Amino acid sequence: MKRYRNGEIWDFEHDVNMVAAAHCNGGKNDSKFLNYGVNGRKVILGIDGGTTSTVCICIPLIPFTQPLPDPLPVLARSVAGCSNHNSVGESAARETLEQVMADALARSASTRSAVEAVCLSVSGVNPTDQHRIINWLREIFPSHVRLFVQNDAVAALASGTMGKLHGCVLIAGTGTIAYGFTEDGREARAAGAGPVLGDWGSGYGIAAQALTAVIRAHDGRGPETTLTHSILDTLNLSSPDELIGWTYADPSWARIAALVPVVVSCADAGDPVANNILHDTVHELASSVRAVVERLELCGEDGKDPFPLVMVGGVLEANRRWDIGNEVISCISGDFPGVLPIRPKVEPAVGAALLAWNFLMRQRHQEALGR
Amino acid sequence: MKRYRNGEIWDFEHDVNMVAAAHCNGGKNDSKFLNYGVNGRKVILGIDGGTTSTVCICIPLIPFTQPLPDPLPVLARSVAGCSNHNSVGESAARETLEQVMADALARSASTRSAVEAVCLSVSGVNPTDQHRIINWLREIFPSHVRLFVQNDAVAALASGTMGKLHGCVLIAGTGTIAYGFTEDGREARAAGAGPVLGDWGSGYGIAAQALTAVIRAHDGRGPETTLTHSILDTLNLSSPDELIGWTYADPSWARIAALVPVVVSCADAGDPVANNILHDTVHELASSVRAVVERLELCGEDGKDPFPLVMVGGVLEANRRWDIGNEVISCISGDFPGVLPIRPKVEPAVGAALLAWNFLMRQRHQEALGR
Repeated sequence: MKRYRNGEIWDFEHDVNMVAAAHCNGGKNDSKFLNYGVNGRKVILGIDGGTTSTVCICIPLIPFTQPLPDPLPVLARSVAGCSNHNSVGESAARETLEQVMADALARSASTRSAVEAVCLSVSGVNPTDQHRIINWLREIFPSHVRLFVQNDAVAALASGTMGKLHGCVLIAGTGTIAYGFTEDGREARAAGAGPVLGDWGSGYGIAAQALTAVIRAHDGRGPETTLTHSILDTLNLSSPDELIGWTYADPSWARIAALVPVVVSCADAGDPVANNILHDTVHELASSVRAVVERLELCGEDGKDPFPLVMVGGVLEANRRWDIGNEVISCISGDFPGVLPIRPKVEPAVGAALLAWNFLMRQRHQEALGR
Repeated sequence: MKRYRNGEIWDFEHDVNMVAAAHCNGGKNDSKFLNYGVNGRKVILGIDGGTTSTVCICIPLIPFTQPLPDPLPVLARSVAGCSNHNSVGESAARETLEQVMADALARSASTRSAVEAVCLSVSGVNPTDQHRIINWLREIFPSHVRLFVQNDAVAALASGTMGKLHGCVLIAGTGTIAYGFTEDGREARAAGAGPVLGDWGSGYGIAAQALTAVIRAHDGRGPETTLTHSILDTLNLSSPDELIGWTYADPSWARIAALVPVVVSCADAGDPVANNILHDTVHELASSVRAVVERLELCGEDGKDPFPLVMVGGVLEANRRWDIGNEVISCISGDFPGVLPIRPKVEPAVGAALLAWNFLMRQRHQEALGR
């Protein structure tokens, strides 16, 4: 096999091959086993390339004739920093990706030759990005390895449906997006255009509305709210005027969105302003789901067909008495009684691996049909 | 007089002094006249230090016993680039300020010794900034020159009230703020906290709502609107999806706010979505004014006292059938029948000069009373 860029990252493969050779045939070199890691096992890599961290999961290639085991066997998990090229630049992103995949393979005692498919999920990826990233991966892996690059919403859906691309996924963390897929390959999205373009259901949107409410109470345009004391206390500021400097000191959306738990606490304690913000959030998130479900007719002609709704992200989880996720579900259930809410038990990187497994299965199925 | 920083900027003063010497006493050097420019005239400098340009106005010092003439005599006007230190850095800002003041004095055939007072208006200035900027100016001017640094809202009010600090000013350009002052020196503000903190009545706010409406119509969350075609056409884009890239390609708020005329055109042509955005804008702007007027009791105890409302900025001017400024006035008139709307006939730099004149007059008055 030819040597690839950053060759030293892959030095471990030599040791894996040596161990494999020692295990098999009493040490007699057997090229078949040598290529498949310690035990000839084929693997799939699933990667969640987020803006704060990158997670790579290595799972064994489960035979397509079997149902997926629950829980899914995971051979290794490795974590690295940000691999979003928009955020850290192309060369740092490539190196992070290569390192995290090498780590996961090394921990699985596997090599690149044992890899059957790689699926990388990246936030806000467009077709040009997809093409470029596939070319990076192509420089790393032998030509038989199947490579997939998908929007993070696709992997998030797969993390709830065990890899099947059907239904709707609602993501609400720092940002928010609703994405939907039909079994015949159509897709649709709503929101996901960032804070300037009206993602009011996002963590950033919730926090920005809360900060605005504090400013409005302070200058006499809005009602008093307990958000003032809670937010100033959290940020260690002494006056609402100081919020202006704090807000514009750093353009990070995640820094603003980190105030969501403060808003939920105030709403829990009965503050009407905080409650209004969360009710608006529920309305916004439900309207994103509704737009996707209606455009794809996921609910069927009579509006009652069952469809999965996968719910992902900090805004939809871990709330207290005020549970934004549950409120969204009850709002959606009113319109679409067939909705099947799913909170994924596995992380997005596993969703990406399951997606790769499903793509491979579909391909084998088509090959078996002679297409 | 000592030589100041960037001495060459002030070389013209030598020529002015020579001309003055030649004019007076048949060329006999007369130090009194020499210090006062060509004709012994004392002057005031008013400067509007904006983020796009800096304007400096030189007016003669009108005797305090006379009413201000209308129109006000302006000796010179000079223009330079941005002098906002937050935007271009301290050293570039200082140089721009010094250059624009030197130009105005040279065009007035005056020197720094003829200057009685300088008033510089800067957007979003805080006490720390004020102190620092006064120190810059102190390095340029002889010690007898009175120096004032004020928020741009103060100069905007003065541009409508001929320098008197009483009433409310509403600014709505790229950003928005309402500022109010009472005759006994109290002040209050509303809004002006920037786009993240709810300045929805600003040009940026109007345009961001319009862009959001296009995204919502596109993904099925909102009604169709003619804003889609008009905005895409203006920006030379082919699909609402491309708006996302366009929006985040450049963090300039003014670039987004430049879409306001498109929104007004669509509203003029009857588009309900554009009309709603402008009605919300009127409501937001009126609520800022109302908050300031109520906190300062500018309308008196019975709510009917007269008070000036100075209206400044692109959002409040130059509209067509849909006139945001007029709508705000009619909204405010309903609450406060004593409101006296003023659209300033002079620019903010003149307002700054008038402010300096008023400060000087008040000081002389207090000196005359032996305080």
